[in-house]
Amino acid sequence: MILYLTKNITPAQIAELQLHLNQIGCDATMLAMHNALLSPNLKDTKIKEKYPFIKEVKSIDSPFQLPSLSFKKETLFEVNGIAIGTHFNNIIAGPCSIENEEQIFETATFLQKQQIKFLRGGAYKPRTSPYTFRGLGKDGLKLMKQAADANGMAVVTELIDLSLLEEVLQYTDIIQIGSRNMANFYMLAELGKVNKPILLKRGMQAKVNEWLLAADYIMSGGNEKIILCERGIRSFDPMSRNVMDIGVIPLIQSLSHLPIIADPSHGTGASQFVTAMSKAAMVAGANGLMVEVHPDPKKALSDSKQALSFLQFEKLMQEIELLKPTIKNPIDASYSIVA
Amino acid sequence: MILYLTKNITPAQIAELQLHLNQIGCDATMLAMHNALLSPNLKDTKIKEKYPFIKEVKSIDSPFQLPSLSFKKETLFEVNGIAIGTHFNNIIAGPCSIENEEQIFETATFLQKQQIKFLRGGAYKPRTSPYTFRGLGKDGLKLMKQAADANGMAVVTELIDLSLLEEVLQYTDIIQIGSRNMANFYMLAELGKVNKPILLKRGMQAKVNEWLLAADYIMSGGNEKIILCERGIRSFDPMSRNVMDIGVIPLIQSLSHLPIIADPSHGTGASQFVTAMSKAAMVAGANGLMVEVHPDPKKALSDSKQALSFLQFEKLMQEIELLKPTIKNPIDASYSIVA
Amino acid sequence: MILYLTKNITPAQIAELQLHLNQIGCDATMLAMHNALLSPNLKDTKIKEKYPFIKEVKSIDSPFQLPSLSFKKETLFEVNGIAIGTHFNNIIAGPCSIENEEQIFETATFLQKQQIKFLRGGAYKPRTSPYTFRGLGKDGLKLMKQAADANGMAVVTELIDLSLLEEVLQYTDIIQIGSRNMANFYMLAELGKVNKPILLKRGMQAKVNEWLLAADYIMSGGNEKIILCERGIRSFDPMSRNVMDIGVIPLIQSLSHLPIIADPSHGTGASQFVTAMSKAAMVAGANGLMVEVHPDPKKALSDSKQALSFLQFEKLMQEIELLKPTIKNPIDASYSIVA
Amino acid sequence: MILYLTKNITPAQIAELQLHLNQIGCDATMLAMHNALLSPNLKDTKIKEKYPFIKEVKSIDSPFQLPSLSFKKETLFEVNGIAIGTHFNNIIAGPCSIENEEQIFETATFLQKQQIKFLRGGAYKPRTSPYTFRGLGKDGLKLMKQAADANGMAVVTELIDLSLLEEVLQYTDIIQIGSRNMANFYMLAELGKVNKPILLKRGMQAKVNEWLLAADYIMSGGNEKIILCERGIRSFDPMSRNVMDIGVIPLIQSLSHLPIIADPSHGTGASQFVTAMSKAAMVAGANGLMVEVHPDPKKALSDSKQALSFLQFEKLMQEIELLKPTIKNPIDASYSIVA
Repeated sequence: MILYLTKNITPAQIAELQLHLNQIGCDATMLAMHNALLSPNLKDTKIKEKYPFIKEVKSIDSPFQLPSLSFKKETLFEVNGIAIGTHFNNIIAGPCSIENEEQIFETATFLQKQQIKFLRGGAYKPRTSPYTFRGLGKDGLKLMKQAADANGMAVVTELIDLSLLEEVLQYTDIIQIGSRNMANFYMLAELGKVNKPILLKRGMQAKVNEWLLAADYIMSGGNEKIILCERGIRSFDPMSRNVMDIGVIPLIQSLSHLPIIADPSHGTGASQFVTAMSKAAMVAGANGLMVEVHPDPKKALSDSKQALSFLQFEKLMQEIELLKPTIKNPIDASYSIVA
Repeated sequence: MILYLTKNITPAQIAELQLHLNQIGCDATMLAMHNALLSPNLKDTKIKEKYPFIKEVKSIDSPFQLPSLSFKKETLFEVNGIAIGTHFNNIIAGPCSIENEEQIFETATFLQKQQIKFLRGGAYKPRTSPYTFRGLGKDGLKLMKQAADANGMAVVTELIDLSLLEEVLQYTDIIQIGSRNMANFYMLAELGKVNKPILLKRGMQAKVNEWLLAADYIMSGGNEKIILCERGIRSFDPMSRNVMDIGVIPLIQSLSHLPIIADPSHGTGASQFVTAMSKAAMVAGANGLMVEVHPDPKKALSDSKQALSFLQFEKLMQEIELLKPTIKNPIDASYSIVA
Repeated sequence: MILYLTKNITPAQIAELQLHLNQIGCDATMLAMHNALLSPNLKDTKIKEKYPFIKEVKSIDSPFQLPSLSFKKETLFEVNGIAIGTHFNNIIAGPCSIENEEQIFETATFLQKQQIKFLRGGAYKPRTSPYTFRGLGKDGLKLMKQAADANGMAVVTELIDLSLLEEVLQYTDIIQIGSRNMANFYMLAELGKVNKPILLKRGMQAKVNEWLLAADYIMSGGNEKIILCERGIRSFDPMSRNVMDIGVIPLIQSLSHLPIIADPSHGTGASQFVTAMSKAAMVAGANGLMVEVHPDPKKALSDSKQALSFLQFEKLMQEIELLKPTIKNPIDASYSIVA
Repeated sequence: MILYLTKNITPAQIAELQLHLNQIGCDATMLAMHNALLSPNLKDTKIKEKYPFIKEVKSIDSPFQLPSLSFKKETLFEVNGIAIGTHFNNIIAGPCSIENEEQIFETATFLQKQQIKFLRGGAYKPRTSPYTFRGLGKDGLKLMKQAADANGMAVVTELIDLSLLEEVLQYTDIIQIGSRNMANFYMLAELGKVNKPILLKRGMQAKVNEWLLAADYIMSGGNEKIILCERGIRSFDPMSRNVMDIGVIPLIQSLSHLPIIADPSHGTGASQFVTAMSKAAMVAGANGLMVEVHPDPKKALSDSKQALSFLQFEKLMQEIELLKPTIKNPIDASYSIVA
């Protein structure tokens, strides 16, 4: 239950209410941005009558609280001139790993010509084996920032450990949390204090409730700029790297106000299927895409099988262009994938 | 390996070759339609030199043989005036269960007005609990056949046990094999002898290789008219009935010449997501759709949560109409979902 | 709810009660063996007051009804002198497939010396590929029956299609239903009319509720002699053929009176792990085991990797012997795996 | 491939060899403890002939290197007087969360009387919801250390974020890495520099290769004291919290020299099944157990359904005692679970 408080409530009154809630065994988290107290396990619908400085109460009937549609109807914020949320309308693109100056500049220059406003790239790579390329680290971050700046693009990169937060914050516009860290609750709680948007990938076997509760860790900490990202789930068939759960897109939209994008590169693990699955995600309602692209996929130091070449990416853009007129945003008919 | 034989080969020569293959430990299945011998485990590429009545040899590098793209490039056949295969271009629609005369006629009449050429409905229902409605049986089949005939539609219904084959053959144009029977190999082998198309649903946890091997049971028995149908796989999240594996559509098309359609009703288990997932399947390359529709979904005796109302179905048709111009068949540009 | 009826109830009174139940939208299945009416969706706890010929009512609070511990506390029946149920105390052993006379006789003779009372073997094999050995059919059944008779053993073999029921009944003492047929509800309902015990394997992806509902199909048809068999479930790791769900053994025993045995051969897919998993199943409470054994595993025509050699089987028996004193049957302390 | 070097090799010679390996595109990690260079992707079996200071080469034919049985035959180390590895012979027990002084001291005192040498307890809890008890933090660590010291026990506690490493190292004897952090590769690499044993739980959806590669991150960083812990995997059946993969125990032992223990508390999620699954893990070959115990499970602030009461724990110890004589360590016959 969310208790919206009157404007002129005093700190002492808030403390009184929190004490009461704790005494009856209920949590009570202050949501400063909303001048409200969140108490998920409170059931007493008559509490408003007892405390006149409670203006309004709102029940939330799900394990996750702040990501719920019962809490708010839409999330809307802006990055690099692009409205994200109900209008999120661009593609996050770039290589899996930043490999060298030439590679990242060449990619950024190409993408800028395709009207892409978000450059992705990994500087610290979470690799299954310790004996594979783990990224350029801080040097990679610097190179990507330069390439993005030179092309009017915003940076999206992954934070793989909290100890790297300061460093990553210096170079990125959106912080990506990878599937392996979706349930890293200590890190999520810290991200609640950060003033940059968080791209929260779904864990490889995360249930929808768990994913939205992960977002709730960030939101209840104070950061409400979250973009969810479906990237494929683990299945029983070794034939494909992952199963891309396209159905989770409308499902999430029926439960939450948070924007959701799709990553067909990891979702399929195979470049030949990326265009088909990009289109599928788009018509199913995704607010955007995240796609791996590389000047020479065969030579990529990581995920070489799933990166699009420049030519393939241009083809993808044409197909997206063709689909654009068929897409209606549930809230705003002017919605389009590429502005 | 497939050994294509010369036209004038004699039965004795075929027998000689089969004997040789068996003696070296290889299977040898005669494919009468192709005047060829199929020997999956034969490795001897020089066999052609030894037997002059072998015209050509073709290697197939997958566990499944006849469904492979190495065997043929396309499957194309016709049912009720609709070209199925690379041009399969219609929707199979109808109720989960045939419940009574009024219901099935009302549905068929409605669908016919929407240009739908295939009426589906279950007469024998595979229900998880023995204490739920199991279908009208033969009476249901008769009613559906009458409703289809009255509206110029073809019938699609499920065969749940081989003992019902004669009965089902009498009333149906396409035999549906449900997910629970996909690995019922004895039944599949018998369906190889039937001269009606088979709609082969994917098992709830069937790997792609297993699904194509199930099709191979039917094909190696002599029936090459098969339509695959993705209907959702079982996952770890009880939030949705199934996870619809949209990515399996382009994956199958990269491996097999068999047409593949999608069933978003079972794939989602929720009518509110059927339209989004129908569109996703379509743009990902599906050759058609199978959708549950009911005059009054809330009163349906089975699967009531996933059936579309007539109004919802009309809305689906409009969205499909909107998408049609964006769809290009990889083989034929004239492809369209509804003729 | 189960309505137990008075002894002197008349057919007319039963019909009256059934009519009433149907009119209020409830199923009503007569359980002749129990002189009772089963109505799973009946909620009216006061029905006894209205119909004096209802002696007693019993609520069952689970989707499955007759397999529930609320229905009865134990299942106990006898096959070949062995008490099955709470005292099931032997191993079902034999080759995956019956291959020839020598193989099946050699195996039966060996097993008889190990005090094994149940000979298993497949005559019709459900194989993933149509191009692999599918069994000897009826000839195989005859050979196995002869081998069993010659050694005082009972036969356990799989029914893969209802059309083979008469044939299989002629030669077997226990009918095995394989994992691929666990949800073949039409077949299960027919097995309710059969007077031989059914060994019901768990489906590869069957939930516990689904498995017990499958047993309910058989039980509500009139056959209450069922043995459940855990044989491994499908997981995400291709490293092992299946994941053997040992935990399902105590879980089933907390829900159902049906005996449950374990099949470590399919559960692991690897002979080197069969002994460890046999012991694990035993101490977790399994009422018995089903194990594949072959005179020369490397030459087996099917499942060669998981069959034990005679030497390995003897070693297994020694380990079981060692564990016997540590096993206490929850109901009867005299329980032992091998009598 | 591992290149064992001669004792008198010079740093310059090592550098020369590393340079050569890098030039031919191979990694080269120095294993100081072994005076060896590890180069997983090196294929050149004749390298020994070119460099006389290579004493011996060893090929490792798996994606994981140092955890492989090809690298060494056993892992053996000592904590709190207990030999861990092939002789690991005790239970790690304690509450899910440290809740207060009384609870942790009462538990430790009880466990000490049961001969338990390892006290577990969470101070920082990874909880799915931000609105549930997240642990006492540093105060909890202090209390647990005091309770352990007072009872001659060693401490096992979880590290949930690298920023807490110094704090946790101060109070713990074994660092637990939870399932949610198994693929936190940055953290794993840092743990390679730590001189305390690591208890590495399997990820909820981790394949065996991924789990052993996670161990390899730690080992290749220099810390070879690792204990693997199976704690249940995620499945499709919501009936149980997890499926405990007992079969992974012998599977791991056929691949790796690392000790493996089992956590039946998380593995089942239900206290009534903990004893059965503890026994199953034991006879399947587990080197030990990790069990949750609480003075009053119903009042536990986390995981209350799976904690054993003191009485239940005593009963577990009796059952273990009964099984002890049946357990043979593959390497040492003197193996026993409780010394």
